Parts: sequence; structure tokens; C-alpha cells
Amino acid sequence: MKNILVIGAGLSSSYLIKYLLDHSSAENWHITVADADILQAQQKINNHPCATAFPININDSFERSECVSKHDLIISMLPATMHILVAADCITHKKNLITASYISSEMQHLHAAAIKAGVLFLNECGLDPGIDHLSAMKMIHEIQNKGGVITSFKSFCGGLVAPEFDDNPWNYKFTWNPRNVVLAGQAAAKYLENGELKFIPQSRIFTQTEQLSVDGYGDFESYANRDSLTYIKPYTIESAHTVLRGTLRRKGYSKNWNNLIKLGLTDDSFTIHDADKISYREFVSAFTPGKGMDELEQRVCDFLELKKNSEEFLKLQWLGLFTDEKIKVREATPAQILQMILQQKWKLNKGELDMIVMQHEINYELGSKNSEVKSALVVKGENEVLTAMAKTVGLPMAIAAKLILNDKIKARGVVIPVAKEFYEPILNELETFGVTFIEKKDQL
Amino acid sequence: MKNILVIGAGLSSSYLIKYLLDHSSAENWHITVADADILQAQQKINNHPCATAFPININDSFERSECVSKHDLIISMLPATMHILVAADCITHKKNLITASYISSEMQHLHAAAIKAGVLFLNECGLDPGIDHLSAMKMIHEIQNKGGVITSFKSFCGGLVAPEFDDNPWNYKFTWNPRNVVLAGQAAAKYLENGELKFIPQSRIFTQTEQLSVDGYGDFESYANRDSLTYIKPYTIESAHTVLRGTLRRKGYSKNWNNLIKLGLTDDSFTIHDADKISYREFVSAFTPGKGMDELEQRVCDFLELKKNSEEFLKLQWLGLFTDEKIKVREATPAQILQMILQQKWKLNKGELDMIVMQHEINYELGSKNSEVKSALVVKGENEVLTAMAKTVGLPMAIAAKLILNDKIKARGVVIPVAKEFYEPILNELETFGVTFIEKKDQL
Repeated sequence: MKNILVIGAGLSSSYLIKYLLDHSSAENWHITVADADILQAQQKINNHPCATAFPININDSFERSECVSKHDLIISMLPATMHILVAADCITHKKNLITASYISSEMQHLHAAAIKAGVLFLNECGLDPGIDHLSAMKMIHEIQNKGGVITSFKSFCGGLVAPEFDDNPWNYKFTWNPRNVVLAGQAAAKYLENGELKFIPQSRIFTQTEQLSVDGYGDFESYANRDSLTYIKPYTIESAHTVLRGTLRRKGYSKNWNNLIKLGLTDDSFTIHDADKISYREFVSAFTPGKGMDELEQRVCDFLELKKNSEEFLKLQWLGLFTDEKIKVREATPAQILQMILQQKWKLNKGELDMIVMQHEINYELGSKNSEVKSALVVKGENEVLTAMAKTVGLPMAIAAKLILNDKIKARGVVIPVAKEFYEPILNELETFGVTFIEKKDQL
Repeated sequence: MKNILVIGAGLSSSYLIKYLLDHSSAENWHITVADADILQAQQKINNHPCATAFPININDSFERSECVSKHDLIISMLPATMHILVAADCITHKKNLITASYISSEMQHLHAAAIKAGVLFLNECGLDPGIDHLSAMKMIHEIQNKGGVITSFKSFCGGLVAPEFDDNPWNYKFTWNPRNVVLAGQAAAKYLENGELKFIPQSRIFTQTEQLSVDGYGDFESYANRDSLTYIKPYTIESAHTVLRGTLRRKGYSKNWNNLIKLGLTDDSFTIHDADKISYREFVSAFTPGKGMDELEQRVCDFLELKKNSEEFLKLQWLGLFTDEKIKVREATPAQILQMILQQKWKLNKGELDMIVMQHEINYELGSKNSEVKSALVVKGENEVLTAMAKTVGLPMAIAAKLILNDKIKARGVVIPVAKEFYEPILNELETFGVTFIEKKDQL
């Protein structure tokens, strides 16, 4: 029997845990679901005979280490900054580890130690990063294997509300961690464009967008996502003069979101004390140049260079930014207050479904011909627990876990899933769950 | 004999150490100057019979603790984030501590422990923060003692080049830590204006400036400095509807500096790898929307909405941002690269002097009359070691040290110098060094 430890039983673990439980008898697995909130862990395993819930205190190093030592494979669904605690224990006890997060520099530093311990630390194996790596590498290898030379690589992905429930003026609802959405773009982005290095400082992330459309799903836009340059080497696309990874939103979102950034409402660098003594209106006024609470709407329009009857301004108004309602928390950063406002307005209601959209756009030369191939994936949620986000984040990790426990993976050390041993079996099995890419090729 | 420990022997310690050495015989002091660089410490004490140089490793907690234990008073000139290490030792060994830095939350947390140990942790006792607190409190108490009610408080301070050496188009040279200048304004500012709370997010700090003039020294402008709200209570100016602390620069500086911010060149959040393979021109191009290296100047003008023959654009050009010269460092953040560029152009040359300018502007009601009182301080450097910055940062700390060692100060715990026991003797002695405020009162 193999013992699997899943740490973190939040919403995004639902599909992962479901898969592991569904395969536990056939594969002879025992699953431990550990969470600070034991009720949440119990709910996820729902009295399954092959599973145990465990109330973990992740900061108790003795408890954490002992828990890791008793399992064969660890899947960390913790917040990204906390994987490193578990990773250190995995080195000590020589255990394999899977995460869906970007490799931090601390994690990267464990590469040699993981190799020495003979273990695999598989990161970036969720949706984005994750399925994007798997599907991009399949396309890249196919093109390269027939002699094609990749000249441009663009990859876009976003978590959105399904079109049938897309009924608010922002065309956006929270389908995953709202804090991550509010803080999106708070780091500079780097990419390659026409052979030139490109940097976008955080203040401009939402002003430099790409427009694109996805067959059957309409128009989208994307803003640059972190550091695209780091993927040139692992993707073996040194021939490309354009390399860009972007986050997808419905058309117009970035322009409107940028108004909130310009006002300063996404600032997470300071705490407003006694915030419960001021109204949302006073909160917005504090960030808006000029004076006079009565003239706030006009001041906002002047500052953002908007007309009062413009769609852009009406979207701000729709959020309730100008109401006299008092803020409901005493100490909070502007970003936290904005999040509270948005969580009321951008709520995914009971019965509403989310949607994942991913699209790769690759240009290549083959002989004297230039071609573009697009590959698109759209996944809708099944219900409010088995969301498209939970499915596409959780399934690649779950399938990878099965591959690792069945000794199908040769890689060791700190890796991301770019090798064929990952993408071939994982993409094949994802198809059986309806996670299927549609390819379209055009000769240019 | 009393033993004083000065940790940090950089440029800003020169006047402080000079004062301590000059008073050592009369006061029966022994001065230890500790620095990681023993040569720098030795140079500062220059074989003085009452002083010792000590090569401290500040991260060696045993060595640091032992060193603190052997002294009666500690003056920390370390970078602001490192005071806390020394402060913990000062609690252990019950030693008084002086710094010129803003009170961090970690430092504030030591208040009760410092009271319990019966020691004084005097912070913000340099120039700004420091002399501004001392001189503002003297004015505030004088107004309040005659029955005046303060309605507006503004305080401005800046370290500049003396007018006779102000010969570059930016009207600015580095007269203190260049990194602090490049990273200035990378946090939101908070203040009170006409009874309304005001926040400025970091992206807009240099766009919302105040204009002011200082008698005999011409026009200046200021940008908001950190959190002015925290001083309302210690200054006892709860009656004021406007409370603003600002950093002074020559007129036009902020607008031009903001162009560098908009481009993204002050970004300190990511490292450019293999930076030595690109030129300054390519560095700037990477941040500028649009493509084509040959069109860079036009792209910058388009993005910043400048004309090519405008003063603003010529100032960017004057910095050398568009040269093909290669960057001289391999790994650096954009802010570090910008700093390297500026250090060549904004160098205070041998024989050139710096200048400190401070001005308070206080409005108050007395009976039915409204008055404004302005108090200005201008200090020029004596030479390139005894700069105005070193003098105005070091002397208040040195004089405070003398007062503490002579048992003239009753305060204990983590404090800033707002009480009369600080400002009266320190301002009086500063006058003997030519650090003198000129007051001017207008009835409004």
C-alpha cells in the first residue's frame, strides 16, 4: 500500500482529492488529507474507507516532519510561500513532492539536495502553470520533430465565469482566490517581442494588453504574466523572437481594472487604521486628487479623464465605490477593503459555473513556409465544488501522483513538467475527463 | 568614565564622531567606533586618545551582544532595518540607544520592554526625522502657550547641492545615500488636507507636489513624505485640519523624476540577468512601449507625451539613457542600474558643498486673528566630509547623547524627541554650530 499526503483541503483541492479517492482501491492507496481546519478535511474525504483526515499545524515543525515521514508522496496545496517548509521535510525523509505553484528561488535552491536524496519535487503542475506547460511542450516537440523552427510563442490562460452566468458589467466573477485577483500584476512582467527584451513595470501591467479571440467563445484580452523569459530554455524555444505568457480576461477588463490601480485602491503596502470610521466614499475620496466630498464623482472623472456617463465610470459606480456605507473592518490595507467591495459584487452565486480558457499561439517556419497553429482549451465547471479551476488545477497533480507512485517518471530534483514522460500520459488521461485542446493551423 | 559605542562609521557619522571626540576629555568619555570596515572606523577616530576602532560583525550575535554590554550608551548608525538587532541587545544589557531612523513596528514593540529595563530608546533624532521634530515642537508649544489653536501644519525638508555648485539640468546632486534617493516614494503617503484624509499611492507620489519658496533661497517644491498622520498625536496638533510632511527638491525635479518612474526605471522588484550584455539604450527600450531601437527617442517622447526639443526630454537625454554604452554590471535591478547612471551624472565633485533646507509653515487662530508663521533653516556643508547632512544628522544625536549621559533626560521607553527636555537644550546648542532657524510671522 502507498500512502499519499495532501496538505490543504480548500476549494482548489476538491477534484484532486476526488480523483485520489476514486483510484484508491484499484491503486492500493491510502490518502491522508491534512488541513488546519479538520472539518474541511473531513468534508473532502466524506468517510471514504481509504482516507484519513488530519488536523495539521503546519508551523509545528515536529508534527509536520513526522506527518511527512509516514507517507510516500506529498502533495502540497498550501499557499505558495509555505511549500518550502514541507519541501525541507521531504529532503529529510526522502519523499517525493508535487505542487501547482511557480518555483520560488528557495525551492530552486533545493535542486541539488533533492537529486542527492533521489527524490522528485514536481512544481508548476496545475493549470497555469501546469497544463500550459504540458500542452505547449507537446505542440513544440511536434513542430520541432517535423523540422519546424519556432519563431513566436504566445500562451494565454484565465479563470472566468461561464458565459451563461456572465451577467455583470465587469464580465468577471471570483472563481478562485479573490486576494490573488486583487493583487494581480503587482510585480513587473518580462517577455520577448520581435527579438527585443520587454519589461512592464507594475504600474503599467494593465495598460499593455493583447487582443485575441477563441473560436466559439468570442473576444478576450490578456495582460502580461510575470517572467516569460524563464521559459525560453525549458521550452527549448531559443529560436523564437517573441515569447509571451499572458493572463486572459474578457475584453475591456484591464482598462477598467487599471482605473482602480490608478486611484490607488489596489495598494497593499499600508494599513488604514480605524477604517470602520470612514465610508467607501471617504475611502475613494482619500485617493482622489482635489477636495470636496460632494464633488467626488467629478474629481474621479477629472483624474481618470472619464466622462460621467461613460461606461468606464458607470462600472466604478456599479461597484458601490461612492456610497456612504461604512467600511466593515477596523484595520485593513486598501487592497483588502477593495476586495471586500468586490466580493459582494463579483460573487459567483449558488448554481453558477466557472470556466477556464487557455490558448497557445505558435508561429513556425518549415522550409520556406510560415505557419501559425493555435490550440485552445475551454473547460466549464461541473458544480460549485467541482469547479473548472479545481478540476484543471487538481487533475494534472493527481495524474502525476499516480505516475510517480507507479514508477513511470525518471526525473529527479526540482522540475517543471516539460518532458514527454509528463505531458504524454497526463494529457491523454486529461482527455478522458473532457480536458481536450482543439488545434487549428493556418499557413501564413 | 562613560563608554559610548557608535556602530557604523559611514559618511553620515563624521560630524557625530567629531563632536563626541571633541567632548571626550571634558566629559570623561571613551568612544568606540565599530564598523565592518575597520579602516573606515580608524579613519574617523584618527588616533584620538579617547577612542578605539572595532571591526564588528553585526550579524554575529555573540560578538554584538558582548560589545553592547561593555558600553553605557549605544548610537546606531546602521541601516534602518538593522537597529532592531542592537535594540534587542540593549534590552538584555539595559543600555540606552539613539538612532536617527523612523521607528519601525519592531522597534515600537520594544516600548514596554525598554520601560521595564529602565532605558531610553531615542529614535528619529537626526535631521528629518529629528531637527524637524525639535523645531516644530518648540513652535507648537510657543503658539499653544499663548492660547493659539493650530489649524494647519506643514513641514518640508530636503538635502540638496549648495546653489553655487548647482550646475546641472536636474538641479540635484547626491549628497547622501543614492539608493535612498532612487527608491524615494516607493511607499504610499498619507496626510490630512482641509479636514480630509489623503492617500497618495506610490505611482503618484511625484505628481502631487506643493510649491513653496524659502526667503533668500528661491523656489522649491515638495512631494509627500510617508505617513504624516502618525505625528498628529505626538505633536499635539489634533486641532489642525491640514498636516503634511514633505521632501524638498528644486522646482521641476518631481515632474522629471516621474518620467523615470513612468518608464519603470526605478523598479527594484526584479533582477535583470546578464545585464552586461545590453546597453543603456536597450535597457530603456525594454521599458518603452512600441518597437524599433532606432525610434527609441520618439517612442519615449510618445509614451511620456513630450516633445523631442522639450526641456523634460533633454534632461532624460542628458543622463545618457540613450547611449550604446554597455551596462557595467551583470545582475542588477532596474533601480540599481539607474543608480549607476545617476551616480556618474549627479556626483558631488571634490570641493563642492551640500545644503540642507528645512521649512515649517504653521497657521493658527488666536482670538479672532489668523496668523501664519514660517520658520526656515538653511545649513551648508563645511567640506566634503563635514557635510551639512552629516552635521544636521549627527549633532542632534551627539547632543542627545551628552544629555542622556549627564542624566538630563527623564523619558524612558521607545520615544521620539518631541518633549521640551529634548528640544530646548538641543536647539540651543545647535545654534552655537550655526544651525539656526529664521522665523517670520504674517497676520492673515
